[in-house]
Amino acid sequence: MIKVGIIGATGYAGAEIARLIYGHPQAEVVWYGSKSYIDEKFASLYGNLFKLVYAKCLDDNMEELADAVDVIFTATPQGLCASLVNEDVLKKVKIIDLSADFRLKDVSVYEKWYKIEHKAPSFIEEAVYGLCEINRDKIKSARLIANPGCYTTCSILTAYPLIKEGLIDPDTLIVDALSGVSGAGRGAKVANLYCEVNESCKPYGVANHRHTPEIEEQLGYAAGKEMLINFTPHLVPMNRGILATEYATLIKKDGKLPTASDIRAAYEKYFGKEKFIRLLEDNVYPETRWVEGSNFVDIGYKIDERTGRIIMMGAIDNLVKGAAGQAVQNMNILFGLDEAMGLEIVPCFP
Amino acid sequence: MIKVGIIGATGYAGAEIARLIYGHPQAEVVWYGSKSYIDEKFASLYGNLFKLVYAKCLDDNMEELADAVDVIFTATPQGLCASLVNEDVLKKVKIIDLSADFRLKDVSVYEKWYKIEHKAPSFIEEAVYGLCEINRDKIKSARLIANPGCYTTCSILTAYPLIKEGLIDPDTLIVDALSGVSGAGRGAKVANLYCEVNESCKPYGVANHRHTPEIEEQLGYAAGKEMLINFTPHLVPMNRGILATEYATLIKKDGKLPTASDIRAAYEKYFGKEKFIRLLEDNVYPETRWVEGSNFVDIGYKIDERTGRIIMMGAIDNLVKGAAGQAVQNMNILFGLDEAMGLEIVPCFP
Amino acid sequence: MIKVGIIGATGYAGAEIARLIYGHPQAEVVWYGSKSYIDEKFASLYGNLFKLVYAKCLDDNMEELADAVDVIFTATPQGLCASLVNEDVLKKVKIIDLSADFRLKDVSVYEKWYKIEHKAPSFIEEAVYGLCEINRDKIKSARLIANPGCYTTCSILTAYPLIKEGLIDPDTLIVDALSGVSGAGRGAKVANLYCEVNESCKPYGVANHRHTPEIEEQLGYAAGKEMLINFTPHLVPMNRGILATEYATLIKKDGKLPTASDIRAAYEKYFGKEKFIRLLEDNVYPETRWVEGSNFVDIGYKIDERTGRIIMMGAIDNLVKGAAGQAVQNMNILFGLDEAMGLEIVPCFP
Amino acid sequence: MIKVGIIGATGYAGAEIARLIYGHPQAEVVWYGSKSYIDEKFASLYGNLFKLVYAKCLDDNMEELADAVDVIFTATPQGLCASLVNEDVLKKVKIIDLSADFRLKDVSVYEKWYKIEHKAPSFIEEAVYGLCEINRDKIKSARLIANPGCYTTCSILTAYPLIKEGLIDPDTLIVDALSGVSGAGRGAKVANLYCEVNESCKPYGVANHRHTPEIEEQLGYAAGKEMLINFTPHLVPMNRGILATEYATLIKKDGKLPTASDIRAAYEKYFGKEKFIRLLEDNVYPETRWVEGSNFVDIGYKIDERTGRIIMMGAIDNLVKGAAGQAVQNMNILFGLDEAMGLEIVPCFP
Repeated sequence: MIKVGIIGATGYAGAEIARLIYGHPQAEVVWYGSKSYIDEKFASLYGNLFKLVYAKCLDDNMEELADAVDVIFTATPQGLCASLVNEDVLKKVKIIDLSADFRLKDVSVYEKWYKIEHKAPSFIEEAVYGLCEINRDKIKSARLIANPGCYTTCSILTAYPLIKEGLIDPDTLIVDALSGVSGAGRGAKVANLYCEVNESCKPYGVANHRHTPEIEEQLGYAAGKEMLINFTPHLVPMNRGILATEYATLIKKDGKLPTASDIRAAYEKYFGKEKFIRLLEDNVYPETRWVEGSNFVDIGYKIDERTGRIIMMGAIDNLVKGAAGQAVQNMNILFGLDEAMGLEIVPCFP
Repeated sequence: MIKVGIIGATGYAGAEIARLIYGHPQAEVVWYGSKSYIDEKFASLYGNLFKLVYAKCLDDNMEELADAVDVIFTATPQGLCASLVNEDVLKKVKIIDLSADFRLKDVSVYEKWYKIEHKAPSFIEEAVYGLCEINRDKIKSARLIANPGCYTTCSILTAYPLIKEGLIDPDTLIVDALSGVSGAGRGAKVANLYCEVNESCKPYGVANHRHTPEIEEQLGYAAGKEMLINFTPHLVPMNRGILATEYATLIKKDGKLPTASDIRAAYEKYFGKEKFIRLLEDNVYPETRWVEGSNFVDIGYKIDERTGRIIMMGAIDNLVKGAAGQAVQNMNILFGLDEAMGLEIVPCFP
Repeated sequence: MIKVGIIGATGYAGAEIARLIYGHPQAEVVWYGSKSYIDEKFASLYGNLFKLVYAKCLDDNMEELADAVDVIFTATPQGLCASLVNEDVLKKVKIIDLSADFRLKDVSVYEKWYKIEHKAPSFIEEAVYGLCEINRDKIKSARLIANPGCYTTCSILTAYPLIKEGLIDPDTLIVDALSGVSGAGRGAKVANLYCEVNESCKPYGVANHRHTPEIEEQLGYAAGKEMLINFTPHLVPMNRGILATEYATLIKKDGKLPTASDIRAAYEKYFGKEKFIRLLEDNVYPETRWVEGSNFVDIGYKIDERTGRIIMMGAIDNLVKGAAGQAVQNMNILFGLDEAMGLEIVPCFP
Repeated sequence: MIKVGIIGATGYAGAEIARLIYGHPQAEVVWYGSKSYIDEKFASLYGNLFKLVYAKCLDDNMEELADAVDVIFTATPQGLCASLVNEDVLKKVKIIDLSADFRLKDVSVYEKWYKIEHKAPSFIEEAVYGLCEINRDKIKSARLIANPGCYTTCSILTAYPLIKEGLIDPDTLIVDALSGVSGAGRGAKVANLYCEVNESCKPYGVANHRHTPEIEEQLGYAAGKEMLINFTPHLVPMNRGILATEYATLIKKDGKLPTASDIRAAYEKYFGKEKFIRLLEDNVYPETRWVEGSNFVDIGYKIDERTGRIIMMGAIDNLVKGAAGQAVQNMNILFGLDEAMGLEIVPCFP
């Protein structure tokens, strides 16, 4: 039984880890870490786990945790994991960090976009970007996993095969994305009150959202060159779900646009055997309801011959594949388990 | 492996059975029956099951089904099951009917409230009312299970122990209930369009909702006498969930009202060992979010000493404990399996 | 032009006053008072008023305000108005208080239910309970109006004629009510975050909600005796709207229950000429969507001959007739204007 | 008093015309036309108008209507208006057609995208595209107004000044748009049921939505050349509102990108005096909640110097400025009234 500790267990992503580990046959949470709710029963904060979880919240003490558990998930604001991690800890325990602290290889890019000083730059190099379907092999032997962001997981996977295969022009990529409100966390902010969010939608972080450089870096590896993209997130009134709609100009070969079957072949090449990636049938597009509660990534596409562009679309559950589910998937890889263990949840509809 | 056939698989309750059976280790759906979508892929109607279920819909042929499966779930409008069931079928297969056809023992009450003629009154007597926590023993040996209604499951369980123990006056019982929209089914009706339901709530079926006699009959057994209640359902804008708020006058003993611990003791007596019934802590009241997607019934209560009444409150997921989940629970009992098999789903929040 | 000052203009009720006064032909807001947003543009907080309102927020200074305006609306937490009001102020300006400070005539009841000391008990006697349709005459000459609560406005009006006419037994009255989330205000609380409220409903304040004694006092005047009721509010996922479903035992005359036309006659007697009260047709029940954004009260009812009870149902927009709209209606009465001025808003659907 | 007839009064757009005309001081609806609800009270279908509108629905008889009214609004599916209009009718009455029948000047484009034969191509030439802020002068003397689509109104106005001024490259324009569900109409379709739409978002009509050629034609006039764009609509779970997020490459002058003040100047040049267009402050972006229920268009923008693109964003209420409001605005222009008459509705929030 893998002993799991969660730092930041009382946020939405942390609690989602708790939900998933509860159903995991070879792991158990032994430490529900929290800054604000120490000594409170976890189930008093998350009534869904009443009579399932009896534990009280403990503090966010990584040193002590490192002795008590096999793997630590940090589901905390940027900067915390980097401020706690050190060689001693990493010798004892695996860390899967759900914050952005170790996602960007260039510390100056991190500091520019996140506007905070990085407290542990020496560990950036060894950290593995935990996008399971792309980096599976590197993840196996990692000590420190940088679990990808929610928008980024969806945005990268949706475009990856076409960029990798040179089917689209990386310089033309535009990512327009929609997110449910749970992505904003459980903090008490006026902007996230029910009446502020309900019956409305809005763009935010236009041209400066922090997930932009993360998408650029990862897709840049696929493109084999640096990329600059436009990424515009929007908040829409639903609890869960991310939908990315991406636009790029198709690259002609011998004066001809790639065909739908060329596109499908590229997706199949990279994702055909992936359990959690569902390439939709022709002219079917992803909808967030079909992945809700699950670790699936649904992907569809449409070629527009009039404009020579392709529209790629992907959907995930931001708290599962976009956070806790991918984190558990990373844990499974790290510990040599079946990658899907504890994650074979059928999406719940309606 | 128990072979399952679903008549009416493409409605919300039928599809929820499909979702639950997909995750059930000892059962599999081999027949997705449908009236409207014959030959269409089930997953084209329920994209959550894409790449999980590959079957196409078949027709609603109970005779043929009886030879092909071990248990038939009928998730269909009132009248259909009664029109199809017969002795030949029941000799071959168990039937769990999610409609109201066999819930009421008095056929005249059925015909009065449902305004249709009952086509198989001779089977009413043997049908067992499948409220698992109350009728477990009778269910074990049944051939035909009348799976309780959604409002009724919640309303009955919430009040049952207090009526059974004589703590409240049955003649004063008032049930005021709220339901999510999935209870109205997947039929194309203007009244259930998004814009009609969203941002509003309304009472309906006031003083004549069909679940009224079902609650009265079952609670009447507990009371040991006939009961007449007021039951008012309301539609509220959410997908899933039923919340029942029930009012009754407490019966004094020696001039004194029962205490909170008397009440708790009554609930504990009947439900203390029930896996799916969660008696909440004092001054905690049920919220539908905490049971969403699960088979739980959450129950709370509050004594009002000023008026001498008690307010009892219960919450369920209408599609799970209120329909498909309880149906699977009944299947488990019928086939001698662990009653919770395939139903140990952690509620998903947010 | 009536000069209006709003103390607490940046809460939902205060901002709704601003919206209504903007459309009022004989009044204008000259003071947007705020505790938290002094010097910020009001329209930066309420973007709906961008390019309509250019003013910045001022402080909540009642003394200064009294010299600047003709009427002050206090849309603030309990206790503030009572702590600011005095004879000097009341000599200069009318006050319409949207808090509960002057609603209850018995100061001990106020202090018991609100758990705060009343700072100006000497003004309770002269304050007029501003339920316009009932107290119109007293309102005309008042200096200090206690604007009714949202639940109370709906609950009282829905039952008033039947109690006044002796058609129902006051001791049996049970009020079960649903509210949209704007009733909880714009404060940053975890409990009111989108993801906490969405897709769920819950009872709260069971047997101890503060609007209980207010309903009891006002309906008690109609009954001619003290009343004790059960009142259970529920939170439902929508922005606006209150729906009250009320139960009471009908009083027989000569062994017979009142008929539907007896009931209708009673409602017509009191409300037949009221512009803002719409008595619905037989077997039509109120839905909050039909009153959204307006000052209407929609009322319906159903006699249950089986139980001898009547179910009365009322719907309002909690921010309009339940707060700001009724406050403006009170202002119109106070200043001798057409009572409906600025309030003839057609409900907006969908 | 202008006499108004509505063909298709019982759909959402038709009923919104009814709501707006009810509040219009110089117009009144004298004919509520309907195909499905003839002889039913209009207010029984739209309870918001109970006790305000007493009329029953009449049929959709344009010939008879032409004698009875001064202006006919056709809020009907594509093809109906074209099948009814003729010279006799147009000699008697103004027609404002909310369908797409007369929006596209090239009948072959219409027939290709709408897949129906045009029944009155001879009137296409004289029909005026009723985008008030652009075509005001032509509208004044028109007999037949083609009222713009909802997505198109928002998409065109948001980009118009920058294209007209040559600040962006028309060939790079991508429009990604979100719509509330009322845009799908009041027809009983499974896809628009509450449970299908709630808690999800999805793209649809990808690369083939019918509003595409309408945007291309109108912006093409501004560009002075033919345009091809990508337009991707998405359905999001809210009643009302359209948000368009548009991407285009900025055109450098002397090697420099336009500045934010260049952009603002362009918007001000065309819209600075427009009552219904609100150019937001820098770094403020439109949100649909701020325009709900009103005729406003809110526009914001952001230059991304990294990619050389601009992101333009616009928000409208699809039923008001995107349909009924603009139709009434067109009526006001046609009849020489103040263009804003009856439309000065303050958006209602929350």
